[in-house]
Amino acid sequence: MKITIIGLGLLGGSIGLKLRAQGHEVLGIDAKEAHEQEALRLGLVDEIVSFTEGVKRCDVCFLAIPIHHIEKTLGKVLDLLDSQQVVTDTGSTKESIAQAVKKHPNRARYVAGHPLAGTEFSGPAAAFPSLFEGKKNLLCDIHLSDKEAVETIIRLNEEMGMESVFMESSKHDKHLAYVSHLSHVSSFMLGLTVLDIEQDEQQIFNLAGTGFGSTVRLAKSAPATWAPIFDRNKKHLSDALGEYIEHLVAFKRYIDSGDMEAQKAAMTRANEIKRILK
Amino acid sequence: MKITIIGLGLLGGSIGLKLRAQGHEVLGIDAKEAHEQEALRLGLVDEIVSFTEGVKRCDVCFLAIPIHHIEKTLGKVLDLLDSQQVVTDTGSTKESIAQAVKKHPNRARYVAGHPLAGTEFSGPAAAFPSLFEGKKNLLCDIHLSDKEAVETIIRLNEEMGMESVFMESSKHDKHLAYVSHLSHVSSFMLGLTVLDIEQDEQQIFNLAGTGFGSTVRLAKSAPATWAPIFDRNKKHLSDALGEYIEHLVAFKRYIDSGDMEAQKAAMTRANEIKRILK
Repeated sequence: MKITIIGLGLLGGSIGLKLRAQGHEVLGIDAKEAHEQEALRLGLVDEIVSFTEGVKRCDVCFLAIPIHHIEKTLGKVLDLLDSQQVVTDTGSTKESIAQAVKKHPNRARYVAGHPLAGTEFSGPAAAFPSLFEGKKNLLCDIHLSDKEAVETIIRLNEEMGMESVFMESSKHDKHLAYVSHLSHVSSFMLGLTVLDIEQDEQQIFNLAGTGFGSTVRLAKSAPATWAPIFDRNKKHLSDALGEYIEHLVAFKRYIDSGDMEAQKAAMTRANEIKRILK
Repeated sequence: MKITIIGLGLLGGSIGLKLRAQGHEVLGIDAKEAHEQEALRLGLVDEIVSFTEGVKRCDVCFLAIPIHHIEKTLGKVLDLLDSQQVVTDTGSTKESIAQAVKKHPNRARYVAGHPLAGTEFSGPAAAFPSLFEGKKNLLCDIHLSDKEAVETIIRLNEEMGMESVFMESSKHDKHLAYVSHLSHVSSFMLGLTVLDIEQDEQQIFNLAGTGFGSTVRLAKSAPATWAPIFDRNKKHLSDALGEYIEHLVAFKRYIDSGDMEAQKAAMTRANEIKRILK
């Protein structure tokens, strides 16, 4: 199969590596020429092409760029596609993208995707072929896509080691606000809090590998990636953040008043998270 | 050397495994008989003994029990020690323990320790010998301890693979509020927030291995361990939590007002955490 990947960063680059290893031909496009050259050198793609050529020549096109760019680019890809070609994406929110193309005559050739995979690193050099192994790709609103287009993406997900999970865009965005975006905000703000105190304290150790290291790991993530995600999901994320802040304020009150029983009760309830982290 | 370990959970058990492997004889004591039997069966200790026998027979005694028990038990250990023996501990806060024994005539035989090591698991079965490898043991107020007692603990730290770091108790507690206790509260409250939403949502995936998985991992920690730590460090932890909440409230405001530039600026500042997570 001929695959075109638009956006050769962590996600796009890893798709390229894996699908090339599976025997597909991979064409690549990136807004930065330096990334294109790096992608070629690292073997993420077979060839660098222009936007029009890449879209015209492929069987399946992946949009692996920030969501505000997906919103602008997806319609242009659909303009060029014929009825055999498919386009999918890796956008971390799905409602705004769905809105952007809902009246496009070729809408049915688009399969909305969101691979639940990533690291705190970005760029072509961060790509690795097993990134998607054992992960899930959340395919949204598949009733709006042609059946064989969906089947093509499910097959490619399998080749990348991903299970396909189906949901509505609106539910996707609410859900992700809680299980992903909130964690990122939480980590970024933890990072800020500790950096503040560090100004007064000489001695901050190397904290990699500690409990702090794992909770703050996401604070290394790229602001340029996350600001648009937070913005596109602002309603749900604001709700999630509001609830999180309420829990923190209550727990601070238990600490201030020395109510260890209330602290234990809250932590015991939180322990149930074990069910979800199998 | 003859080592007595009081408290045969994750920390005490791991100390036992490692020091036995290094050729020391290890005596063990636990408040729960089931833990004592399990520790024997798992080879964490050579022998189970009574409190008085354990303290009398050892060269070095480790207190690896919750801090409120250390506060009560440390004086009793010091009562029994002669001028050749040493006692140390693994308590996660240090000021309240320092207060508890500051007038004890044998105070100089105590070396206050805090190994920066742990997992979200507890009990004898969670112990493993490499727990301390590459970690730090924070030794506090060493000017209050006999020099050769400190040297003995530094040597044992080396045998367990730990670097010894020196600081004042008061500074220790403030520091730990930011780099450890706050992370735990943050994780516990994230867990609660997501569990709340789950009540309305059927579909929560297996989130182990995702960004959420790492930020919420500490929410699996034992409430009985952490409530006393939070309580003993309430002043510093309350300050840290207050600052954290302020950062979250500000960030929520940037999201609500759609101020992506302010979001990016805050995240870019948080990215500096890379310096600390080498």
